[in-house]
Amino acid sequence: MSVVGWTRIGELCTADPAAGEGPLGILRDAAVVAVDGRVAWVGPSSDFPDVDVAHDMAGAAMLPGFVDAHMHPVFAGDRAVEFDSRMTGTPYSAGGIRTTVAATRAASDEALAANAARLAAEALRQGTTTLEAKSGYGLTVHDEARSLIAARTVTDETTFLGAHVVPAEFADRPDDYVDLVCGEMLDACAPHARWADVFIERGAFDVDQARRMLEAAETKGLGLRVHANQLTQGDGVQLAVEMGAASVDHCTHLSDDDIEALAGSRTVATLVPGAEFSTRSTYAPARRLWDAGVTVAIASDCNPGSSYTTSMPLMVALAVREMGLSPAEAVWAATAGGGMSLRRDDIGVIAPGRRADLISLDAPSHVHLAYRPGVPLVSGVWRAADRLV
Amino acid sequence: MSVVGWTRIGELCTADPAAGEGPLGILRDAAVVAVDGRVAWVGPSSDFPDVDVAHDMAGAAMLPGFVDAHMHPVFAGDRAVEFDSRMTGTPYSAGGIRTTVAATRAASDEALAANAARLAAEALRQGTTTLEAKSGYGLTVHDEARSLIAARTVTDETTFLGAHVVPAEFADRPDDYVDLVCGEMLDACAPHARWADVFIERGAFDVDQARRMLEAAETKGLGLRVHANQLTQGDGVQLAVEMGAASVDHCTHLSDDDIEALAGSRTVATLVPGAEFSTRSTYAPARRLWDAGVTVAIASDCNPGSSYTTSMPLMVALAVREMGLSPAEAVWAATAGGGMSLRRDDIGVIAPGRRADLISLDAPSHVHLAYRPGVPLVSGVWRAADRLV
Repeated sequence: MSVVGWTRIGELCTADPAAGEGPLGILRDAAVVAVDGRVAWVGPSSDFPDVDVAHDMAGAAMLPGFVDAHMHPVFAGDRAVEFDSRMTGTPYSAGGIRTTVAATRAASDEALAANAARLAAEALRQGTTTLEAKSGYGLTVHDEARSLIAARTVTDETTFLGAHVVPAEFADRPDDYVDLVCGEMLDACAPHARWADVFIERGAFDVDQARRMLEAAETKGLGLRVHANQLTQGDGVQLAVEMGAASVDHCTHLSDDDIEALAGSRTVATLVPGAEFSTRSTYAPARRLWDAGVTVAIASDCNPGSSYTTSMPLMVALAVREMGLSPAEAVWAATAGGGMSLRRDDIGVIAPGRRADLISLDAPSHVHLAYRPGVPLVSGVWRAADRLV
Repeated sequence: MSVVGWTRIGELCTADPAAGEGPLGILRDAAVVAVDGRVAWVGPSSDFPDVDVAHDMAGAAMLPGFVDAHMHPVFAGDRAVEFDSRMTGTPYSAGGIRTTVAATRAASDEALAANAARLAAEALRQGTTTLEAKSGYGLTVHDEARSLIAARTVTDETTFLGAHVVPAEFADRPDDYVDLVCGEMLDACAPHARWADVFIERGAFDVDQARRMLEAAETKGLGLRVHANQLTQGDGVQLAVEMGAASVDHCTHLSDDDIEALAGSRTVATLVPGAEFSTRSTYAPARRLWDAGVTVAIASDCNPGSSYTTSMPLMVALAVREMGLSPAEAVWAATAGGGMSLRRDDIGVIAPGRRADLISLDAPSHVHLAYRPGVPLVSGVWRAADRLV
């Protein structure tokens, strides 16, 4: 039996509102004990028991490890030139996602796994202890399956996104591509995935195509996620709610009906401020969603086109500055909210029975994640009580 | 004689437009040699000579160390609660700068120096090899002088900012405070400072008061800097240009006449996007300034009230996203521009004769500083050819 403890935590953000003050359930001068990688006890420092390994936090803040519920870390190449052109308004005949598809198809299995590992390590150093990883740059049976196998090397939260865009070779017969996704591609990918995801948008897939693919995935036992309402309003959010998807992601352009539907559902709105930052988009209406009672998560959307960042601390800062969440709400959305987006009851919160995924800050309060933007404040990272950073 | 070299630099951003491509004077597959801490040679990797210590950069990008020409690192306490209230729109009777003045006056000399050292080290890890440090939270003869002595422990670029605000004890007789700044306070502070600075704004000092203080400082041999046009348009920029100040900082609200005056002057416009981020302000018109021919620098404005960040990489990302500079222009402003803001001809550019202040990125291009916001990309930092990170 391994017993690890943390004491003199100046501000312990449990992310359980019932456990303490505010949405983050904050406790002051607190302590945590983990047994065999699970939280066994949370209480005041004055009651800290004998443990095998004791960490004296000397007043630092601690919070749950970040849960980044929306990443695309399996790809090859980058699109820095396309980014530079977009920022400067220079005409650039970019291939967008298809540029990355070509590079990904040409990359070895080892290169894809190495890229995912590089980004997972980078995310870990910034406090991300659980991440979701999508395929979606292969878009052939073989390349989607090996993308998921690469994703599995860094996380169990793998998502089949064959329905990212219609690949060029199917441009004049998109329904044939939908058939492929629902059939042979799904058969090859389902064993390596927990989730299926569809990008519903003009230029990607419509609601009827999405429904077909999501229904097929459901029969294979996959959980459902949806990219929707990123660039325009549409019916994607409504479909996600109707089908009981765990998460609908982006949610930048929402109608009142969309917000009402989300509020009456278990579907989490996973917002991705990094994409809105890096594409000079408007920001998703996090404040309205939160006030309506919708469960909100924030995630990085790490991908080489529209959001090439792994920084959950920056996502917190942007959710505060640009989306109107309080620092406490933004940190909740980046921890407990992410856990709910992945329908996980073992992560995202510091409470007895949960996995001991904790991070410490070089700061006395979670507020500093927004108050000190861009500063690397994560000073320690533990997953299942093992120190990783 | 110590000879240090760097070779196989995938993209060397010299920040000298005459030396290579674009505003950053980029060279590909380049090498640099430093002798006794100064750059002695820049050329192609294929001509890299024998050196005592050779760094193989394996294709990484290198650029000049960042020059952060506007920081306030000498203070005590923080204002996280005030920040939280501002972001959430909660009424909060904050004392603003005066809160920090009270904490700073109560702090020991050692505590002030330790705070400056902590922030200088944090900045260094993010690539800042030269920083400017202002007083301005003492506002008594004794506390301003000891603030500058603390600042001197981290930089030679110290700035006397007794004219930050009128302290509470002079609230009903501000001109008496101006007399103090011009007299006894200046006498006590000038030996420890290179620069003098005045905050020209409603609620701080008007142009006539500023002129008196700047003239007094000039007679003591101090160079001039000005905070102006942060919250409102006004005559601060015009005064700075008229008096030949090295830099006028903030420049958020400018008239066409202000821009024209700057373009015809040697006064650098030092923009501080971090303050605009953390106060939800509009952003300074960097694009218009650059296009008009004004020399633009960007800086962090690191201070505990309006911009508690040391991250020059984030300043680059914000200057691109929010101010319309290209990534190359933003990096130029954070390096060569900062050097010009401090009237230094030995830093900010990688060229023979300059101090060998270089940083490497965990990336192939400077574009990644904006393309990968929030990600700690600075992998190596050298000052005068000594590796510090």
